[in-house]
Amino acid sequence: MARIVQKYGGTSVGDVERIKKVAERIKASRDEGNELVVVVSARAGVTNELIARAKALSPNPSDRELDQLLVIGEQETIALTAIALQGVSVDAVSYTGAQAGIFTDKVHTKAKIKTINAKAIEKDLTAGRVVIVAGFQGINEEGQATTLGRGGSDLTAIALAAALKADKCEIYTDVDGVYTADPRVVKTAKKLEEISYDEMLELASSGSKVMQSRSVEFAKKYGVVFEVRSSFNHNPGTIVKEEVEYMERVVVRGVAVDKDQAKVVVSNILDKPGSAARVFRALSDANVVVDMIVQNVGRQGVANLTFTVPRTDTQKAQRALQPILAEVGGGTVTIEETIAKLSVVGVGMKTHSGVAAQLFQSLADAGINIEMISTSEIKISVVLEQTRVDEAARLAHAAFNLDQA
Amino acid sequence: MARIVQKYGGTSVGDVERIKKVAERIKASRDEGNELVVVVSARAGVTNELIARAKALSPNPSDRELDQLLVIGEQETIALTAIALQGVSVDAVSYTGAQAGIFTDKVHTKAKIKTINAKAIEKDLTAGRVVIVAGFQGINEEGQATTLGRGGSDLTAIALAAALKADKCEIYTDVDGVYTADPRVVKTAKKLEEISYDEMLELASSGSKVMQSRSVEFAKKYGVVFEVRSSFNHNPGTIVKEEVEYMERVVVRGVAVDKDQAKVVVSNILDKPGSAARVFRALSDANVVVDMIVQNVGRQGVANLTFTVPRTDTQKAQRALQPILAEVGGGTVTIEETIAKLSVVGVGMKTHSGVAAQLFQSLADAGINIEMISTSEIKISVVLEQTRVDEAARLAHAAFNLDQA
Repeated sequence: MARIVQKYGGTSVGDVERIKKVAERIKASRDEGNELVVVVSARAGVTNELIARAKALSPNPSDRELDQLLVIGEQETIALTAIALQGVSVDAVSYTGAQAGIFTDKVHTKAKIKTINAKAIEKDLTAGRVVIVAGFQGINEEGQATTLGRGGSDLTAIALAAALKADKCEIYTDVDGVYTADPRVVKTAKKLEEISYDEMLELASSGSKVMQSRSVEFAKKYGVVFEVRSSFNHNPGTIVKEEVEYMERVVVRGVAVDKDQAKVVVSNILDKPGSAARVFRALSDANVVVDMIVQNVGRQGVANLTFTVPRTDTQKAQRALQPILAEVGGGTVTIEETIAKLSVVGVGMKTHSGVAAQLFQSLADAGINIEMISTSEIKISVVLEQTRVDEAARLAHAAFNLDQA
Repeated sequence: MARIVQKYGGTSVGDVERIKKVAERIKASRDEGNELVVVVSARAGVTNELIARAKALSPNPSDRELDQLLVIGEQETIALTAIALQGVSVDAVSYTGAQAGIFTDKVHTKAKIKTINAKAIEKDLTAGRVVIVAGFQGINEEGQATTLGRGGSDLTAIALAAALKADKCEIYTDVDGVYTADPRVVKTAKKLEEISYDEMLELASSGSKVMQSRSVEFAKKYGVVFEVRSSFNHNPGTIVKEEVEYMERVVVRGVAVDKDQAKVVVSNILDKPGSAARVFRALSDANVVVDMIVQNVGRQGVANLTFTVPRTDTQKAQRALQPILAEVGGGTVTIEETIAKLSVVGVGMKTHSGVAAQLFQSLADAGINIEMISTSEIKISVVLEQTRVDEAARLAHAAFNLDQA
C-alpha cells in the first residue's frame, strides 16, 4: 500500500465521459490498496469562459473578484469527480482549496502557498476515503479565495504530496511524458524514463510546455519525486527526481525550442556604469520579462545591448524604453520578431567539455547563423532565425545522439 | 440613508446583460446614499444543469457532494455582479455563504440557518462597499458547504436583513408583487399594496408561487418587513409585514388555486383509535406530505379517510399504503388526480362571520360541486373538480369584491 497524490488536468476532466474514465483510473489504483488524494483542474476552457464573462462586465475587474469567480471551475470538477467515484462504489469526498487547508499569501490571481493544514484530509484518508482536492486555489488569512496562477494545479498536487508525505505523485496530462525534443518537430524524439529537477527546470524555461517551472522548483525544494504521464493511456511516464550520479553519463538530456520570443537591440548607448541598469529597470517597471541578454562594446565607448522578451511584450518594451533613451546616450531601439531560441539541456554538461563547440559546429555545417548565445551550468541556448530553428533542433538532437536514447 | 438588503432571483441574473441591468439598479439605490447588501441566486437553469451532470455520474450522489457542486451556481453570479458594479465604478465585494458567516445545521441540501456572523459584512459596509452575498448557501460547523433547499435565496436575504438590522428588505423577482389572484386565471386580479405575514403564509401554502412559506415564517419570527417587487420595471411591489388593525377591514385578501394536488381515499377502514395514525405514519415514513384531511364515519364502525397529496407522490402514497391496509381493516385505496384546491385567505375572516357560507353559495349557484372542505382561522380551502377551478376562482374573486380592491 502506498500513499499517492494524483493530478488530472483540464482535458482529462473535460466532460462527464472523461470524468468517468478518470474515476475508473482512480478506482483501479484504489483497488490495489493505495491511499489516494486526487487533485483536479477546471474543465478545459472554463477558466477562459469565466474571464470572458467578467471582462464583458468590467474592463478592470478586481483581482479579488476574479479569484472568487475562477475558483468555481475546480469546485465543479472536484464534486463531479467525487460523485463519479460514488457512482462506481468508491467512498469519496471533495475539498475546495479552502477546505483542504491550503493557505496562501494575499496576492490574488498569483498567490503563493504558505502552509497546508492537511488534518482534515488525513482524517478522511484514515477513514478509507478517496480525497478529491481542487487544484489552483487556496485561501488567504482573511478567508478570501485565492488562485495560484498558471500551472497552479500541478503546484497544488506537489505541495500536497509534500505535506502528506506521499510515496508518489503522479501528474496526469495529455502527453506521455517528457521527451528528448518536441515529437512534432523531431520525429525521432524519445520519451525519457527519468530526468533531474534541474534539467526539467531548464527545459521548462526553454519553451518546453509540459510543466511550469514553479511546480518543479517546489518539488525540488521539498524533494517530491513525481511522474508526468498520460491520462489517456497506461504507458509509464517520466520520473522527475533529484539528480543522481548516473544521470551525468548523458551529456544532453533534451532539446527545446521557444518560438515565442523576440529580439530587442538597444544600439549606441553610452558604455558607462548604470546604462544597462537603467534599461532593465525601465523594462522591469513595465513588467516585461527579459530572458537572454548580450552586451557588446563597440568603438569609442558606445555599446549595443541585445536581449530577448516574450513576443507579446514587444510593444510594451518599446514604450518603456522610449522615454529613457536620451538618458543612456540617445540610442535607438530595433525589434526583430522572426527569431527563435534553441536550447540543449543536460546535467552531464557540467563534467563534459566541448558541448558548446559541438552544437555550434553542427549548426555551422548546415549554414545556420547564430545571433545570440547564452549558457548556464547545464544549458546552452542560442538565438537563430525562426525559419531554421526546427531544422536546428533536429541537427542538435542527432549531434548529441538523442535519437538512440 | 437606509440600510437595505436586496435579493435578485435567477431570472434577474440570467445572463451578462441582465446582470448589467441589476448593477444599474443597485447603483441607483447606492447613489441615493443607501447602504446595500445584495443577495443573488444562481442563473436560472444552472442548478438543474449541475444536478443533471451529477446524476449522469451516479444515480445516488451523496448530499454533501451535491451541495459542494450546487454552491458554485451562486458563486458565479456574486462575483459577476460585483464585477458588473466595478464596471460602473461602484466599489463592491462578493461573499460566498461561508464567507458571509452564514452557519447552518448539518442537513445537506436542505439546511437550516442557525446563526449569522455578519462582522465582515459590517466592516465592508462601513468602508462604503456594496456587499454581494450568495443566496441559498451556508457552511456547517465542520466547514462543509450546505444549501438551504427551495426558496433558499429569499431566506438568505431575510435572515441577513434580520442579522444586519436592515431598514428594508427588497425581494426582486419576475412578478410585480402579490396579487389578489393569479392574473393569468383572474383577469381582474389586483396587485396588493400590502399583506400580513399570515395571509402570505396561507397563500403560499395554498399554491401561490411567489415565495416559499419558510422565508415568510422566518420574516414573521424576526419581524423583517419585506417588499416583493419586479426587477424588470420600477413599479412599487407588495409590502409584507405584521398584521395591523386596518387590515382586518378586508375580509378576503386573495384567492389561490393549487392544481398540483391529488385526492386519495382510503375506504372501509376500521373506525377505531389508531387507524388514522397508522395510515399517516406510513405516508410520513415514505416522505409523502399530506395537505387536507377529511374523515367521515359511515355505518357499522367503518370509515372513509380522504386526504390530498402532491400529484407527483400518488404512486409513492399507493405503495406506502398497500402493506398496511390489512392492519386497518382491509380497505381499498382510490386515487383521483383530476381535482384542484381553491383557497380564500384573509385576516379579516377572524372577525367576520359568514365567509364560508358566502363562498359555498357562490360555487353552488354555478353548479360547482365541493368535494372536500378545510378551514383555518384565516383561510377556507375547498377541493373541486379540476376543470372548474379557474371559474370558481373568478367567482370567489368577484364574490368578495376583490375586483374593486
